[in-house]
Amino acid sequence: MNFQPILDSIDAEIRPLLGRGGQVANYIPALARVPAERFGIALRTCDGQEARAGDAETPFSIQSISKLFTLTRAMRRMGDALWERIGREPSGNPFNSLVQLEAEQGKPRNPFINAGAIAVADRLLSLGDRKADLLAFMSELSGEPIAFDDEVAASEAATGYRNLALANFMKSFGKIDNDVAAVVDLYFHQCAIRMNCVQLAHAAGFLCRDGAHPLDGRPEVASARQARRINALMLTCGTYDAAGDVAFSIGLPCKSGVGGGIVAVVPDKLSLCVWSPALDHSGNSLLGLKALELFAGRTGLSIF
Amino acid sequence: MNFQPILDSIDAEIRPLLGRGGQVANYIPALARVPAERFGIALRTCDGQEARAGDAETPFSIQSISKLFTLTRAMRRMGDALWERIGREPSGNPFNSLVQLEAEQGKPRNPFINAGAIAVADRLLSLGDRKADLLAFMSELSGEPIAFDDEVAASEAATGYRNLALANFMKSFGKIDNDVAAVVDLYFHQCAIRMNCVQLAHAAGFLCRDGAHPLDGRPEVASARQARRINALMLTCGTYDAAGDVAFSIGLPCKSGVGGGIVAVVPDKLSLCVWSPALDHSGNSLLGLKALELFAGRTGLSIF
Amino acid sequence: MNFQPILDSIDAEIRPLLGRGGQVANYIPALARVPAERFGIALRTCDGQEARAGDAETPFSIQSISKLFTLTRAMRRMGDALWERIGREPSGNPFNSLVQLEAEQGKPRNPFINAGAIAVADRLLSLGDRKADLLAFMSELSGEPIAFDDEVAASEAATGYRNLALANFMKSFGKIDNDVAAVVDLYFHQCAIRMNCVQLAHAAGFLCRDGAHPLDGRPEVASARQARRINALMLTCGTYDAAGDVAFSIGLPCKSGVGGGIVAVVPDKLSLCVWSPALDHSGNSLLGLKALELFAGRTGLSIF
Amino acid sequence: MNFQPILDSIDAEIRPLLGRGGQVANYIPALARVPAERFGIALRTCDGQEARAGDAETPFSIQSISKLFTLTRAMRRMGDALWERIGREPSGNPFNSLVQLEAEQGKPRNPFINAGAIAVADRLLSLGDRKADLLAFMSELSGEPIAFDDEVAASEAATGYRNLALANFMKSFGKIDNDVAAVVDLYFHQCAIRMNCVQLAHAAGFLCRDGAHPLDGRPEVASARQARRINALMLTCGTYDAAGDVAFSIGLPCKSGVGGGIVAVVPDKLSLCVWSPALDHSGNSLLGLKALELFAGRTGLSIF
Repeated sequence: MNFQPILDSIDAEIRPLLGRGGQVANYIPALARVPAERFGIALRTCDGQEARAGDAETPFSIQSISKLFTLTRAMRRMGDALWERIGREPSGNPFNSLVQLEAEQGKPRNPFINAGAIAVADRLLSLGDRKADLLAFMSELSGEPIAFDDEVAASEAATGYRNLALANFMKSFGKIDNDVAAVVDLYFHQCAIRMNCVQLAHAAGFLCRDGAHPLDGRPEVASARQARRINALMLTCGTYDAAGDVAFSIGLPCKSGVGGGIVAVVPDKLSLCVWSPALDHSGNSLLGLKALELFAGRTGLSIF
Repeated sequence: MNFQPILDSIDAEIRPLLGRGGQVANYIPALARVPAERFGIALRTCDGQEARAGDAETPFSIQSISKLFTLTRAMRRMGDALWERIGREPSGNPFNSLVQLEAEQGKPRNPFINAGAIAVADRLLSLGDRKADLLAFMSELSGEPIAFDDEVAASEAATGYRNLALANFMKSFGKIDNDVAAVVDLYFHQCAIRMNCVQLAHAAGFLCRDGAHPLDGRPEVASARQARRINALMLTCGTYDAAGDVAFSIGLPCKSGVGGGIVAVVPDKLSLCVWSPALDHSGNSLLGLKALELFAGRTGLSIF
Repeated sequence: MNFQPILDSIDAEIRPLLGRGGQVANYIPALARVPAERFGIALRTCDGQEARAGDAETPFSIQSISKLFTLTRAMRRMGDALWERIGREPSGNPFNSLVQLEAEQGKPRNPFINAGAIAVADRLLSLGDRKADLLAFMSELSGEPIAFDDEVAASEAATGYRNLALANFMKSFGKIDNDVAAVVDLYFHQCAIRMNCVQLAHAAGFLCRDGAHPLDGRPEVASARQARRINALMLTCGTYDAAGDVAFSIGLPCKSGVGGGIVAVVPDKLSLCVWSPALDHSGNSLLGLKALELFAGRTGLSIF
Repeated sequence: MNFQPILDSIDAEIRPLLGRGGQVANYIPALARVPAERFGIALRTCDGQEARAGDAETPFSIQSISKLFTLTRAMRRMGDALWERIGREPSGNPFNSLVQLEAEQGKPRNPFINAGAIAVADRLLSLGDRKADLLAFMSELSGEPIAFDDEVAASEAATGYRNLALANFMKSFGKIDNDVAAVVDLYFHQCAIRMNCVQLAHAAGFLCRDGAHPLDGRPEVASARQARRINALMLTCGTYDAAGDVAFSIGLPCKSGVGGGIVAVVPDKLSLCVWSPALDHSGNSLLGLKALELFAGRTGLSIF
């Protein structure tokens, strides 16, 4: 399949809709001032074909998409022991709810809600991972140097009381081993990574390749089984409280972030990334989801 | 792929485990007296290959598997209007919880929790469907005459106070149009349908065939899009509060019932059904899930 | 203290406010058509002094005030065994919530939420109480013949799906012994009793008299300890989700109903009843609470 | 009434029960090593009569009883503005639950749950109150110098992750104005105040005296109305999730702490304090409640 014309047609269809709906995340200034009228899409197939359209090379704050990569590192290094601290079920609640965390004694429902990603960050710290290691991992995966947006990281820290509440709450149940300040510092930084669609489409490439590194001659990123299981988690838990709707209408494993990016995977075929900053009421990119629906419809690619 | 030896090897591996764990549903006598030491598996591929092993021809109470078929009828007849009354998100709560139903003003999270299936039954009644129509549909799909187990239906009715509570609760929010007694009567009967693994593997065949009837020369059961969307709902919501784990470890759309049956679909390839009556703590067949994990592992068939 | 001028002054202060706020209960026509511009107040002291003002002799639907009297009958006949099925804690939730009922396995938090009163009705049925016995009790307490409003009872039954849900839900936990239809029939009828302020001030008289019958030469209604404990339950649980505020601003045990009546008790001194149909957002009579606040302020009577 | 023989008889009846049930708070070592076999009781009437028995002069950690005094300071200084940030309703949930706090957007249900007391501490900081001011207030009220137990304060801080979670969570809703660390530092210190039964019976004296200082010739502690309202809050919210039961069986306003102390008030008559370290499942002193029940029974003093 030749994907470039498909991406071009999606870009053409989405572009007139930019600025017409949704709301750019505004809880910190650095996110609030991103123009809503942006749309980018990029993909890379397993056999190396690339395509991109729109603002595919404009960097944005990857936010919760980072949870995909910290999870991958933790799964690779800890194996099934990771699941002693974190569940694998959809939350059935808004992404930062404390209710279920209380009912389940500080064990987050899955690694993609905030509490779960904070618990993953705690595991990584215990394994010796530091912020620099995460950047090195992202750079290695995308083939280009990746950095934090320090302003975003500082703003996350300055306003992140709810995440501090989550971390302290889990700590009160004995489910966080490291110092809370260190754990949330890593978490706030991972959310503040800046990347563009092309880089994220590259970086997620191991998920459609049975865990193999997307670029030639590099070591394995995850086992084949782990890569497929991460796809399963993306499908059931990757898009906040809209995972069921996304599976229903798009049918691909996705992980979104409030910066407006969404990474999607077609197993054994390709990885892609869309970006448009205005969010729907679930916190997912409104036009990003629309673009993925167009993509699934035009290519017929769906896991179902 | 030749599936018969694979099913035989799964049967051989499962059989020594029968009776060694899990708990047969015991809320009504007719289910409680089913021997735990039963295991059956059957499949049918899109090109007509069949395979079966163990107690594949022993009939059992399909229970919540029936929700798959009432949903199909309602989607086909109502289209997207169905979703005004029923959501498409995993529930994040045990399957008969009232909490989320209250928070969401009587709109069930999805059609596979009890409240959702009762709401589907109400829609079917409004469309003129009666119990006999459901039996005719199941018979048409499986190619053999299908009947209710009247003892099970009577017992469900005699003990079904929680389902009556759900129906009355939704009615108090104006989300049930028909008489509560008629709605739960249809619901209790659909749960009391008796079928075996071979029949269910046949009946679910439209889900791997883009909605086409599994047997030759019959009319379409659902549109291609609807069939794929039902698969998506099965994956995210089909196995009670274990949907995330099932997606993670098996990677196939499944719908289970407390009678011990599980229907699974490999899109574009095959439909299958396993049955073993002892349930795990989530209400899914313990060895049924184990068998599906073996099947996915040995065939490499997974949607991820 | 001469109470007649105090009640007159309260009536004079409240009357200009009638029709200026709150909302008459409108879930059934017979309640919805009660004019909002009504206010009555009546009291009777332990030594037999009586006072009344405004619409004190206009009958209204006592609704949840009836829960006070069914509780009294059940406590007198069952003693502490009653509390095996019903708690004594404020609910911390709107009065018809199912959430806490689920968390506590079908045991209602207290006898004044709907679920608790339905559980009390079930206990009364098991003790042989019938609707006629309840009317006889109310007549005996108030010294005048008391009757049901049949139209209200029929409307409650025709729209009472939420109460049916509560009853079926408790039955599913084994906490209701009698037929659900019989239980809610008694409950719907007790809510449909018609009385006026004078009658209710009489009927509640045993609560300020250590359980002695309010009228001369009759047998004891409750033990002294039971009467004081009922007062305690009224204070902590008697005014839906506003019990804390009512204790804080009025400082007297009260039991309200959505018909707009509120019974209050000054232990060892007097019982009184106010009525005004427009309700605040908590379901309590807006001007009834205001009148009680004026009464407590002007008389200095408070339990604190 | 001569109270000394009554307290002696209660002490005699309670003493054989010491060490026979309940559990000393063990979340920090300094509390865990308090011997369970302690019981003290002391009271002071409005006309200056004093009585005491048992370990009435042994100091203990007042813990949540401190909430009574910080509330008093905040009410006196802020008046009704305090209630913009804090509710006055029983919580219907264990004392440190986050659920209701989330549902109500960071506004605690009442000033006696941990979240509410932390919000009160924040208000006091904004008013310029410091730890030393609180000690001066307690010393002034009890007529003796009062101090913090520094070991307890340090341990509270070292293990107080759940309270940090509460404070951060409220801050995320904009309901905490000061630095979280400063707020919880004040809160942890107030919990670590050491006093004995005699001192606490003195200190609570303004609550039965219409707000007048318990010792001669001092300024008013609270207005008469405020004092009575604090009593109302104690009754409805003062004993964790057992307030309804305490009102039912004891019938007096009480405030308890996990150090085993309970302050109770008989309005217009006396203030008293009991102490016994072993707690029941609600977190209230098991034998402290038993002693109060005996006291209410023998004296006939009850507000109902």
